[in-house]
Amino acid sequence: MLSPDDKRFIIRLVPGAEFHTHRGRIRHDDILGLPLGRKIMSHLGQPFVVLQPSTHDLIMNVGRSTTIMYPKEIGYALLKLGVGPGKRVIEAGTGSGALTAALAYYVRPDGRVYSYEVREEMQRLAVRNLTRLGLAEFVEFKVQDISAGFEEREVDALFLDVREPWLYLAQAYAALKGGGFFGALVPTTNQIVGLLKGLAEYPFVDVEVAEIILRFYKPIPERVRPMDRLTAHTGYLLFARKVQPGLAGQLGVAPEEDSSQGK
Amino acid sequence: MLSPDDKRFIIRLVPGAEFHTHRGRIRHDDILGLPLGRKIMSHLGQPFVVLQPSTHDLIMNVGRSTTIMYPKEIGYALLKLGVGPGKRVIEAGTGSGALTAALAYYVRPDGRVYSYEVREEMQRLAVRNLTRLGLAEFVEFKVQDISAGFEEREVDALFLDVREPWLYLAQAYAALKGGGFFGALVPTTNQIVGLLKGLAEYPFVDVEVAEIILRFYKPIPERVRPMDRLTAHTGYLLFARKVQPGLAGQLGVAPEEDSSQGK
Amino acid sequence: MLSPDDKRFIIRLVPGAEFHTHRGRIRHDDILGLPLGRKIMSHLGQPFVVLQPSTHDLIMNVGRSTTIMYPKEIGYALLKLGVGPGKRVIEAGTGSGALTAALAYYVRPDGRVYSYEVREEMQRLAVRNLTRLGLAEFVEFKVQDISAGFEEREVDALFLDVREPWLYLAQAYAALKGGGFFGALVPTTNQIVGLLKGLAEYPFVDVEVAEIILRFYKPIPERVRPMDRLTAHTGYLLFARKVQPGLAGQLGVAPEEDSSQGK
Amino acid sequence: MLSPDDKRFIIRLVPGAEFHTHRGRIRHDDILGLPLGRKIMSHLGQPFVVLQPSTHDLIMNVGRSTTIMYPKEIGYALLKLGVGPGKRVIEAGTGSGALTAALAYYVRPDGRVYSYEVREEMQRLAVRNLTRLGLAEFVEFKVQDISAGFEEREVDALFLDVREPWLYLAQAYAALKGGGFFGALVPTTNQIVGLLKGLAEYPFVDVEVAEIILRFYKPIPERVRPMDRLTAHTGYLLFARKVQPGLAGQLGVAPEEDSSQGK
Repeated sequence: MLSPDDKRFIIRLVPGAEFHTHRGRIRHDDILGLPLGRKIMSHLGQPFVVLQPSTHDLIMNVGRSTTIMYPKEIGYALLKLGVGPGKRVIEAGTGSGALTAALAYYVRPDGRVYSYEVREEMQRLAVRNLTRLGLAEFVEFKVQDISAGFEEREVDALFLDVREPWLYLAQAYAALKGGGFFGALVPTTNQIVGLLKGLAEYPFVDVEVAEIILRFYKPIPERVRPMDRLTAHTGYLLFARKVQPGLAGQLGVAPEEDSSQGK
Repeated sequence: MLSPDDKRFIIRLVPGAEFHTHRGRIRHDDILGLPLGRKIMSHLGQPFVVLQPSTHDLIMNVGRSTTIMYPKEIGYALLKLGVGPGKRVIEAGTGSGALTAALAYYVRPDGRVYSYEVREEMQRLAVRNLTRLGLAEFVEFKVQDISAGFEEREVDALFLDVREPWLYLAQAYAALKGGGFFGALVPTTNQIVGLLKGLAEYPFVDVEVAEIILRFYKPIPERVRPMDRLTAHTGYLLFARKVQPGLAGQLGVAPEEDSSQGK
Repeated sequence: MLSPDDKRFIIRLVPGAEFHTHRGRIRHDDILGLPLGRKIMSHLGQPFVVLQPSTHDLIMNVGRSTTIMYPKEIGYALLKLGVGPGKRVIEAGTGSGALTAALAYYVRPDGRVYSYEVREEMQRLAVRNLTRLGLAEFVEFKVQDISAGFEEREVDALFLDVREPWLYLAQAYAALKGGGFFGALVPTTNQIVGLLKGLAEYPFVDVEVAEIILRFYKPIPERVRPMDRLTAHTGYLLFARKVQPGLAGQLGVAPEEDSSQGK
Repeated sequence: MLSPDDKRFIIRLVPGAEFHTHRGRIRHDDILGLPLGRKIMSHLGQPFVVLQPSTHDLIMNVGRSTTIMYPKEIGYALLKLGVGPGKRVIEAGTGSGALTAALAYYVRPDGRVYSYEVREEMQRLAVRNLTRLGLAEFVEFKVQDISAGFEEREVDALFLDVREPWLYLAQAYAALKGGGFFGALVPTTNQIVGLLKGLAEYPFVDVEVAEIILRFYKPIPERVRPMDRLTAHTGYLLFARKVQPGLAGQLGVAPEEDSSQGK
């Protein structure tokens, strides 16, 4: 739902319910009877537009109040991790559920997301967010310290968004299937160093460190130029793949410089 | 399949077939009998690792010989276009099928991709690529000039990767459902201007112009630094959403500067 | 002068005068008697550090209240324009004098800056700024419309920071000496198009279009990472060189892609 | 001198001498008799254009065969270090003399550059480069290990382009005057960490870590877009200022995030 001042509201439509803003009330039943892309007036005569949310909208909506992985990182990570219909994926920590929502959306209908978080109240927030989006049924939420290990085995992919991911590499290796995809997000270059050192201790190959910068331009045809300010940094992404012991050294972990492989 | 010198080969396993490289032959039956992430020796004694490809690998493999949309753009576009299981999506042109492969992968099992291309031999290449990846069954390939319009109606999303996308906005508008997602990739700023002018003629809202820069770092813990050279530019992404006539002017097409909406 | 909360103040020391802030007063005479890099206390007991300003400080100080060219652009432009001791340089418009200050600083002691501006009150501000910095004596300020042409001939370099620089290329060409350096700053890609078209009408060679992105990192050794937000855009820089009529077509204006010439 | 295929040659004109390329010979006397910006034909009838070099050209010419600081870094560093006419500046190491050339160019006519290098043959190359450019007289070249300290005192600025700059901070502090400008270039994030830790041990304030990205655009008005590939990384710049002992802790070394100070 897009308001007259371009604000977005994501609501789950329930017959009989009402949507309230300072620009007036709208009855869910009225929205339910309307094709998408149409205008609907609030009881104060303010025009809203009814639109279904994109995955991008879902992610940004979930992250409204906390630090999150952004769509620019999530989209790339989905492709690098091979996440798709039917896959089984572990993530830790859950946070407010931004990545969880994207993973759940894309493993549907037969896949499964296992989401670990130590802070109970944080995961409650994520459960609420995913439930509102209709995606909670594809996720097993676990309030658990991952230093004790993950309960799943042979998962297709595993993503760590925690402060010291290098502490959990044995656990990650144990949970992944052969060839499984490992990913992590870290905000600082010091953490890149820590994680690369950790990965070198386990049989992982195909290590990649990447940073994604998203630049918006003013959508005015007479004055096309980048926006004045931009979010310069969310974090660095690291990816690797599990192989059987003994293979990592033999194959070399460093992609060649300027390879054509990863633009 | 990862070779000793870190080259990637994507092969479709067929009982009885053989895989040939200058580093020796491997029988598909031998690969089929092996868990993933394991080593397999060619008949010349060279070690290969058997891994399933990520979506990222699929995309890069398809694009090996032509200019393509890269994973950094594709991942973000998937989220912005709300592409996911069950969606119906149009794209034009097909090119060598890099975006087609990603769309097909993510609309499975119930969605559908309609892929238009005027150059017959180009689309033949794409069909071959998608067939090899096992994704062709989710795509309807059409060798057709889109100036005559698209044959589908009420599609969820539509993406134009053509030289003059502004020429086909009436056709795109007609094919999209209300609230449907429009996207395009253009390499030059002149084309941004052309497309923004075109979009202003039709009832589209929520226009965004973005550019994604991907930077790789050397994965060596003692010397973490960006790679020396990088692919500086693939193109600019534009997104918009279809609404009913009369709404665009009223709501304003320009997102506010520095909005929290689109990191 | 650096305050306890890391604010910068640039002051011209005058015997007998006093410096006032909400953190207390400091007598100029006390500062004059002190070696640089030392602490000085205000009458409220607040510690300040006395430092001479860098050229960077001078530029940022001048631009405090208006849109300006930033040091990242100015530093690069100085090198591209060959500005140095003894050079004669034209600029238009003056603005608040940020570029003027840098040019004046670097043409000293024998060079000269000719600075044109149509808005009288704006140039008054620039004169005040340059006077405060002790640089006004190297500049001839002119409140004049440059469409009537520049009064100087055979200048070494000329820089346009105006809305429609392509309107003044005949005037710029006339003022430059053979081989002279032309430069311009424009905020939008539309203006790049306009200026490139204009430059093609005159005998200019060696055309370059560049954009400079400056990224700051947090100076904390345990958490080295880019600052969260950054000024994404000031403008695009264009450079070219005057040659005799007939040479431009023959030599080609486009630098080769990926040339080693201009990193 | 610009060749028909847009190559640059920097030559020092000597009466009686000749300039040789595979496109033919040109007598220096003929060039000396010609205004700049004019065409001159080689004895094979190939057209060259005679242009004076910019500071940018000088720098790039010096660095032709080695890794160097690029104009994008040098321009910004000049402003941050307050280098200008009359200043006394130390640099180490000399390398092939790219930064040396820029410093010498800008401290003229009364300033002085002190350039330290341990590799004798490298400094010989730099001396040759600076002599060719007519800038050697402003530089004192020293083949010396800087761990023994610098011979100068009270210099205005000091720049380290060495592998482990944190080893020489006591020496740098001793050579700088109060408020003097310290700068360094390091290629890796690990070195940023090392240098920040080192700087915290000495009375330096106003620490800044920056990275400059230069992006070229194709200068074709119909297709304005970034060049396909770019040099992604030269290094990170660090700056700081010397104050008297005891002040650093009191004032805080970290600039506030998003400050308006340092665009």
